[in-house]
Amino acid sequence: MSEVKKLTEKILKFRRERDWEQFHTPKDLAISLSLEAGEVLEHFQWKSKEEIEKHIATNKEEIGDELGDVFNYLLLMAHDFKIDLAKAAENKIKKSALKYPIEKAKGRHTKYNKL
Amino acid sequence: MSEVKKLTEKILKFRRERDWEQFHTPKDLAISLSLEAGEVLEHFQWKSKEEIEKHIATNKEEIGDELGDVFNYLLLMAHDFKIDLAKAAENKIKKSALKYPIEKAKGRHTKYNKL
Amino acid sequence: MSEVKKLTEKILKFRRERDWEQFHTPKDLAISLSLEAGEVLEHFQWKSKEEIEKHIATNKEEIGDELGDVFNYLLLMAHDFKIDLAKAAENKIKKSALKYPIEKAKGRHTKYNKL
Amino acid sequence: MSEVKKLTEKILKFRRERDWEQFHTPKDLAISLSLEAGEVLEHFQWKSKEEIEKHIATNKEEIGDELGDVFNYLLLMAHDFKIDLAKAAENKIKKSALKYPIEKAKGRHTKYNKL
Repeated sequence: MSEVKKLTEKILKFRRERDWEQFHTPKDLAISLSLEAGEVLEHFQWKSKEEIEKHIATNKEEIGDELGDVFNYLLLMAHDFKIDLAKAAENKIKKSALKYPIEKAKGRHTKYNKL
Repeated sequence: MSEVKKLTEKILKFRRERDWEQFHTPKDLAISLSLEAGEVLEHFQWKSKEEIEKHIATNKEEIGDELGDVFNYLLLMAHDFKIDLAKAAENKIKKSALKYPIEKAKGRHTKYNKL
Repeated sequence: MSEVKKLTEKILKFRRERDWEQFHTPKDLAISLSLEAGEVLEHFQWKSKEEIEKHIATNKEEIGDELGDVFNYLLLMAHDFKIDLAKAAENKIKKSALKYPIEKAKGRHTKYNKL
Repeated sequence: MSEVKKLTEKILKFRRERDWEQFHTPKDLAISLSLEAGEVLEHFQWKSKEEIEKHIATNKEEIGDELGDVFNYLLLMAHDFKIDLAKAAENKIKKSALKYPIEKAKGRHTKYNKL
């Protein structure tokens, strides 16, 4: 079994044991994904570049927890929607490569529709 | 090489080829993670349960793209912060299992601090 | 002085007294706006229509606090960017009225580009 | 009639004419508030301090539109929840003043629970 599949099994088991499938509508899962992404962001709010560097070095566990939360919700959504998450990620890189050709996008953060 | 590691290599290559590391500060990556999670959420905005079900069935590619975006940013952040994303996800499930013991949390969506 | 102007003066005074202008870059203010909007959303996460109705009735103060936070950040941003917030809101309604003409949009939640 | 009340009447009229009350559940309004806050944030993504300064100066109308959107959703939510938005904002400043006393918080961006 692939690594992503194995991780999916673990979070599914956690959910099943708590009988939480009933709350996990697509809308509420997407809300949770967004709120957990916000908790990652909160770690960097107000901080300067130097403060952030230090903060990451000394809060690896806490930040890892937040990234883990986002990942777990992502796994649940991909499972529920019958989407292959690994393939989706690779697929999106291919699409982005077309939207951001190296010769145009190199060293620039301009959005593709303004490149 | 593990699956997550392989996927990380792909998105790192995409970034490196475009010389985008310079823009990928932790703060800006976290902003992107949050905005991409918002794009997932936008798919379900205003829609009823039935409309959402139909929407997912007929927009699997588009939703997959958004989940892929979130995953790719997650991989970049985990890489940059030297966090093992798979371990972080497993680790977080263990912590959540302690915060939400089955006998207390089963069938309830109450937050752990109010259980 | 207009009501919005008066409210702006209050939050500006609060900020000035704490010497916080130095942290209030546009990027960090926008992060805060987004995180506070997330705190509003968190009130409704996982809850059914009936639970939400009850929750609002019994948590008016808490929800008011979150809406107040969003409003205060909005006032700060409008001030810093030299934007007239009241005019911006009215202006946006006029634009939306053109994007969503009554005869086309009535009773439909379709996005304007698909109407 | 107060300024906030007048603005509320305008967005309520816009909604009523389109028969959109049926879609404006608290959960969906909060999702919209969050997505619109994200659109404000998107203006500052990837940009340096200097780029942001220039961007604001040359995109005042667009940024005003996004702030206007957030404000309009805020007005709708406050109306629907029977919350006085102006009072809520003032009230929150008073609470924050207690959580962040000037002598402790001056010149520091530390969260109140770590001050």
